[in-house]
Amino acid sequence: MDKSTVTVNKQIIEQKLSELGKIGRNANGGMDRTTFTPAEIEARNWLKDELDQLNVDVRVDQAANIWARRQGQVDHLPAIAFGSHIDSVPNGGMYDGALGVILALEVMRVLDEQGIKTKHPLELVSFSAEEPNPFGLSTFGSRAITGKLAYQDIEGVTDPSGKKLTTGIKEAGGDPDDFEGAVRKDEAFSAFLEVHIEQGKRLLNRDIPVGVVTGITGIYREEVTVLGEANHAGTTLMKDRSDAFLAAANMSLELEAILKAYPDEEVVGTIGQVFVKPNATNIVPGEVTFSLEIRGQTNDKIQDVLAQWEAKMETIKKDRLVDVQRKKMLDQQAVPMNRDVIACCEEQSKELGYPSYRLGSMAGHDAAHMASITRSGMLFVPSLDGKSHCPEEESRMEDIEKVANVLLHSILTMDQKEW
Amino acid sequence: MDKSTVTVNKQIIEQKLSELGKIGRNANGGMDRTTFTPAEIEARNWLKDELDQLNVDVRVDQAANIWARRQGQVDHLPAIAFGSHIDSVPNGGMYDGALGVILALEVMRVLDEQGIKTKHPLELVSFSAEEPNPFGLSTFGSRAITGKLAYQDIEGVTDPSGKKLTTGIKEAGGDPDDFEGAVRKDEAFSAFLEVHIEQGKRLLNRDIPVGVVTGITGIYREEVTVLGEANHAGTTLMKDRSDAFLAAANMSLELEAILKAYPDEEVVGTIGQVFVKPNATNIVPGEVTFSLEIRGQTNDKIQDVLAQWEAKMETIKKDRLVDVQRKKMLDQQAVPMNRDVIACCEEQSKELGYPSYRLGSMAGHDAAHMASITRSGMLFVPSLDGKSHCPEEESRMEDIEKVANVLLHSILTMDQKEW
Repeated sequence: MDKSTVTVNKQIIEQKLSELGKIGRNANGGMDRTTFTPAEIEARNWLKDELDQLNVDVRVDQAANIWARRQGQVDHLPAIAFGSHIDSVPNGGMYDGALGVILALEVMRVLDEQGIKTKHPLELVSFSAEEPNPFGLSTFGSRAITGKLAYQDIEGVTDPSGKKLTTGIKEAGGDPDDFEGAVRKDEAFSAFLEVHIEQGKRLLNRDIPVGVVTGITGIYREEVTVLGEANHAGTTLMKDRSDAFLAAANMSLELEAILKAYPDEEVVGTIGQVFVKPNATNIVPGEVTFSLEIRGQTNDKIQDVLAQWEAKMETIKKDRLVDVQRKKMLDQQAVPMNRDVIACCEEQSKELGYPSYRLGSMAGHDAAHMASITRSGMLFVPSLDGKSHCPEEESRMEDIEKVANVLLHSILTMDQKEW
Repeated sequence: MDKSTVTVNKQIIEQKLSELGKIGRNANGGMDRTTFTPAEIEARNWLKDELDQLNVDVRVDQAANIWARRQGQVDHLPAIAFGSHIDSVPNGGMYDGALGVILALEVMRVLDEQGIKTKHPLELVSFSAEEPNPFGLSTFGSRAITGKLAYQDIEGVTDPSGKKLTTGIKEAGGDPDDFEGAVRKDEAFSAFLEVHIEQGKRLLNRDIPVGVVTGITGIYREEVTVLGEANHAGTTLMKDRSDAFLAAANMSLELEAILKAYPDEEVVGTIGQVFVKPNATNIVPGEVTFSLEIRGQTNDKIQDVLAQWEAKMETIKKDRLVDVQRKKMLDQQAVPMNRDVIACCEEQSKELGYPSYRLGSMAGHDAAHMASITRSGMLFVPSLDGKSHCPEEESRMEDIEKVANVLLHSILTMDQKEW
């Protein structure tokens, strides 16, 4: 394969990104393309029109995932799949998700242009509802095809306006009545590779265009309620207080101190949601409920942080005469990416002359679910200023072009493997 | 004056407290007697009926304060006033405010019973709307008569249901159209003495029945907004965050440390109200708004705490890369009680054989406003477990009886003064 001629076309990528990026764009310049909204349906139709111009068979599965299959020379072989998602968070950016789909589209176009026939069939996928959405089910499409969602999980689900999830699926061309028919068998795929923006600054800070993802973060969440005693803010001496807010503040800073003792990139933790009761200027807080989130590259690291924090919390409980109630909300295991896919991506990056960098993904992605049925990997593109989920989200075209070429040649290389 | 015969009647006090305490009592055993509600109007009517049985002239002023004047032998002399308020916080207790009015009533009754004629006229007062209320104007009645509220301050005021404050005043027998006619001239009074529950544990912890108040706390309040950067809770490394909540937590614990370095009873401070934005489990908080309150026995102490906290805040701003916006909400000066009134109360306590203790009031009271027009003092009754503004609020009858006798004899002693 001559890597100097088989390359993506930067102008076409830029043009397609721009076309798709106009669909659902709001007055702030942000993307309002929440799953199953009219704008998102319009984006789906745009994508299907694009795919119809290629040498692929387009279908929408029961979970409304869009698939485009390109025949392989040995068509009964498991497919090599690649893609991402085109829904966005409210007022999000035009790269998160969409970039991975546009680059998958470009790969298909280049193969047609070059008249390349792969041994394995190829499947482009645009997953439904990857982002958190009003139906409360993110990474919806990849969970559906990997058998992690059953009909009963979607049956009664509505958004806050009362719209049924099943209605949305139908509007997007899915078939909720045969929902579990969307499941793909383990032998369906040979590999899955997803391109996504990094959503952080690690690549940018190192001036490296290609990120090779080693694993997808585990996420642990609990709801912590600190019970102190509400009291008059004037007549209660400092020493007589059991102030639930100061106790929560203390616990939060202890968590930060524990996390900062780890090397960068291994773990992060966040107190993102805080409710104070009675929340009055002149009453010592009697109760505080806060969300605790810990993400880590391995499950051990998450548990280690949690154990240290629990020890600190016990001390704070005693010192501040507060009680604590805890409720586990999520315990999503970390998912390693496939070592062969990682090695393949690194090798192609090297052969193309691009520096690459291994890094963990601290956000969840469809690839985490795909990893349960096939060897999976991800490529990250640097995010300018690390921003994502906002109108300012941006990646440089020169980085995008490089990652697209790595994607293209990794697919072609994997096609040669006897996996 | 024979102090063994001129004494209050504990049974009558207990009975009257109990009668008034039934008005507005809710299913939790708490008092729902918020100002200008039907229950509070019923309590006003009960009080007027009680006063009508005594040798006093009852009137309701323009601000709906209830006054009962007992003629003096030299009736043109300035009056000695005493009383408190009968409104409550929602789900409050039966002592806060009511006790001071019941004891004033008992003083009037004893004087009638004993046939005592004072030189000065005496005025019992039950102030309107002392507690925080839905109209947003606390210590309303005492501010009205001391000229601190003008008609324009009440004109457009409504509660959240849209009820006009002026309607409430009228329902309670006031005359909002002639609102400023409620103002009492500086020469109207010779002294003012208010009995109130302590709402703290200082007397109880020392097992002392009579508290003599040295001053009423200054209250400083501001609204502090910490501006960090909202970011993805997964992809933003700990070192790349400017987490507004952790900065606010840090500022709160620094405030606590500063306050705890002061001797007990001198200053207290509270972060009582906290709002986090966007307040989502998976987003690093970008903005936190919190209330800062500092109360102190002198204005200097408040300013001293504030200055130390500002220095710490500057460091936190730099360390955590956050910005801070501040908005002063209240800067109520500390008000010392009159030294002669204090001395008189202490002397009477001693003569009656009761231990007394000087203490500052860390809550605001009508006496703070009365101090701007006459020599004013307060007597505190121990609060069981320090509780107030809740159904469990309670004081012991033996303590109440003692403070009532100190009130009675302090009034009679002040009546003899050539002030």
